[in-house]
Amino acid sequence: MTLQKRAEVTRAAIIDGAAKAFEALGYGNTSLTDVAGHAEVTKGALYFHFKSKEDLAMAVIDEQHARVRMATQEILDRDLPALTAMVLMCREFGHQLCTDPVVQAGIRLTLEASAFGHAVRGPYEDWITVMEELVRTAQIQGDVRPELRASALARFIVASFTGVQMVSDVLTEREDVMERIEDMWAVLTAGVVPSERMANLGTLLSPPVLS
Amino acid sequence: MTLQKRAEVTRAAIIDGAAKAFEALGYGNTSLTDVAGHAEVTKGALYFHFKSKEDLAMAVIDEQHARVRMATQEILDRDLPALTAMVLMCREFGHQLCTDPVVQAGIRLTLEASAFGHAVRGPYEDWITVMEELVRTAQIQGDVRPELRASALARFIVASFTGVQMVSDVLTEREDVMERIEDMWAVLTAGVVPSERMANLGTLLSPPVLS
Repeated sequence: MTLQKRAEVTRAAIIDGAAKAFEALGYGNTSLTDVAGHAEVTKGALYFHFKSKEDLAMAVIDEQHARVRMATQEILDRDLPALTAMVLMCREFGHQLCTDPVVQAGIRLTLEASAFGHAVRGPYEDWITVMEELVRTAQIQGDVRPELRASALARFIVASFTGVQMVSDVLTEREDVMERIEDMWAVLTAGVVPSERMANLGTLLSPPVLS
Repeated sequence: MTLQKRAEVTRAAIIDGAAKAFEALGYGNTSLTDVAGHAEVTKGALYFHFKSKEDLAMAVIDEQHARVRMATQEILDRDLPALTAMVLMCREFGHQLCTDPVVQAGIRLTLEASAFGHAVRGPYEDWITVMEELVRTAQIQGDVRPELRASALARFIVASFTGVQMVSDVLTEREDVMERIEDMWAVLTAGVVPSERMANLGTLLSPPVLS
């Protein structure tokens, strides 16, 4: 392994370790010693890559966002109907929230940051931008009613997904999050899909769970 | 003023002061000296009423929840159609989030508590219970489609409201929260109100903003 490659591997291990430590202890209670322990690196290696705990938290948020964006891109690349892509993106994000410690910690840190007034706006804005584009395409494709304002609908989708995963976390530690995402889309599709397309919905999505 | 009455006034002043301090500084950065300063009481008076900062934070959350519940009860007492009551409850909560420092701080602390894994479940559960009852009544009144599962819909309404106010806080410091609540209900009503009742919606609600 080259030095460069080894540094990348160490950096990735530190981010994974930091994610586990933040998720287990919360940002406030996590020390850099905890992170070094979880990452199985020396504190020297840790300080070589990151200046401070805040630095580390931002790196976890960035990595989480990169992973969600990459999964999103894979869905967009499949050239599906836009409404299908919107639903799949939410399902995939839900799946990552259940299985990927970096995504779990990144979302927790994002929440915590906004709780303290250090709002992390970027991920919300990026996601709203992607959704808005998809809503416009879905309107052209006839799967979303043309009279709805795409910007407002995109923002509502992102906001309601945010709340759905959060309330699922509080009430069931995300055990029911996939089911709640289906409920969300059952209400949303009934609200935004033109009635003449509703019969066709089964081919766009799996059967809605709510009704 | 009796001693008892005076103690109540002091306790209320401390809760108001704590709300302002937590909202301005965040839970982690707030000291009991900050709270005493904001509340304009001595530290002795503070310790007479509250054992710790955590105690104070829980008192702010309880007081926030009591205020929201009181406003909810006033709406329920007006004996409106259930769907109207559901919309008014969200608007009233949005209004309190814009104007009442105790409600603002309570929601911030609730969020922060769940960010640290000390989930505050009670307020969510209470609100879902009230909403579920209203959904069932609205179904009997013909304003919500009878085939929807009331428990799932109630949970989605609470979750999406939670996300809507949160994302509005992150992106606009809640400047647009009232507008986003209207957008939310424009999508929800289109999704849950039977089509033959949609024409009647104007008499139940103010005109939807989204379409």
